[in-house]
Amino acid sequence: MRILGVDPGLTRCGLGVVEAGASRRVTLVDVSVATTAPSLDAPARLREIADYLGSVLDTHAPQAVALERVFAQHNVRTVMGTAQVSGIVMLEAARRNLPVALYTPSEVKAAVTGNGRAPKAQVVEMVRRLLGVDVPTSPPDAADALAIAICHAWRGAVPGAAGRDPHAIATRAQTRWAEAERAARRSPAKPPVP
Amino acid sequence: MRILGVDPGLTRCGLGVVEAGASRRVTLVDVSVATTAPSLDAPARLREIADYLGSVLDTHAPQAVALERVFAQHNVRTVMGTAQVSGIVMLEAARRNLPVALYTPSEVKAAVTGNGRAPKAQVVEMVRRLLGVDVPTSPPDAADALAIAICHAWRGAVPGAAGRDPHAIATRAQTRWAEAERAARRSPAKPPVP
Repeated sequence: MRILGVDPGLTRCGLGVVEAGASRRVTLVDVSVATTAPSLDAPARLREIADYLGSVLDTHAPQAVALERVFAQHNVRTVMGTAQVSGIVMLEAARRNLPVALYTPSEVKAAVTGNGRAPKAQVVEMVRRLLGVDVPTSPPDAADALAIAICHAWRGAVPGAAGRDPHAIATRAQTRWAEAERAARRSPAKPPVP
Repeated sequence: MRILGVDPGLTRCGLGVVEAGASRRVTLVDVSVATTAPSLDAPARLREIADYLGSVLDTHAPQAVALERVFAQHNVRTVMGTAQVSGIVMLEAARRNLPVALYTPSEVKAAVTGNGRAPKAQVVEMVRRLLGVDVPTSPPDAADALAIAICHAWRGAVPGAAGRDPHAIATRAQTRWAEAERAARRSPAKPPVP
């Protein structure tokens, strides 16, 4: 199943497409960040993002769209633009009859790293390991979009995976990360054993 | 000049079209409220609103769109849906190359009643007097959408009106309302003189 993950934003909108297979296997199809100039007015910026999103949907033909859920409480200065972009992503998906799933940031972090409060760097690192590719760390929107797509892949979206508890099943990379974290907590001053 | 005013909302979205002429004259072209069922998911609701908006734009061919500016601070429970609808209105306007103007609720109230803190009932009453028609009071979204369109008509949007201070020019109805208010303040217990 092909999934488009979207990290919505007016200045930077991350768009990551992954192919989800059996045994929690995910592979990278495409990732990019749509950017718009703050000097443009909001309608022009939204149109640019919608046009870019449309070209990604047309090119990669995902079967589902996963979107980060926006909260009004967070980051009041940028939240309205983010909500507007979310609305456009939902509209364009609905117009193509694609299902849309929404995930909170902590749901995405928990799915990818096993920890709902994982720092950004850990999310990026896990996305790299899971996809086996060198996802850019900056801007973070690219890795975040892929993390959202992976989250959807593992939360019952893949045929045959329904009913599983994604938190109960750790990938090899997640298990190794958790081991490394535990080791680091045990001996914070000691360098890691190679 | 024909103006579409939009009071954005996911459950009720007011759409009012007015024709703005010389000497601050405004006439009603069309008014309606798009409603969507809360039982539908957000993408389906946004598509319904976008489709309805598209039909209003196609039918009445306004030359400008005026939209209420949404603030993250107000009404946190519904603000995200309202912002999503705003994004869609801006997108559909931009795709038709229509200019979009944003006004705060107090700018709209000040333009229509002369008082940025006017109660809702006064806004509705002024919209009725200015358009000379019986605009429904419930839901308030219809009158609000018309008030937003009238606000845009008077704030430099009409050719020849640029440079005027809209607050300095009161309509006859506004002047009469202000007189009635002053009279009420002078003698709150006394019935108004016919």
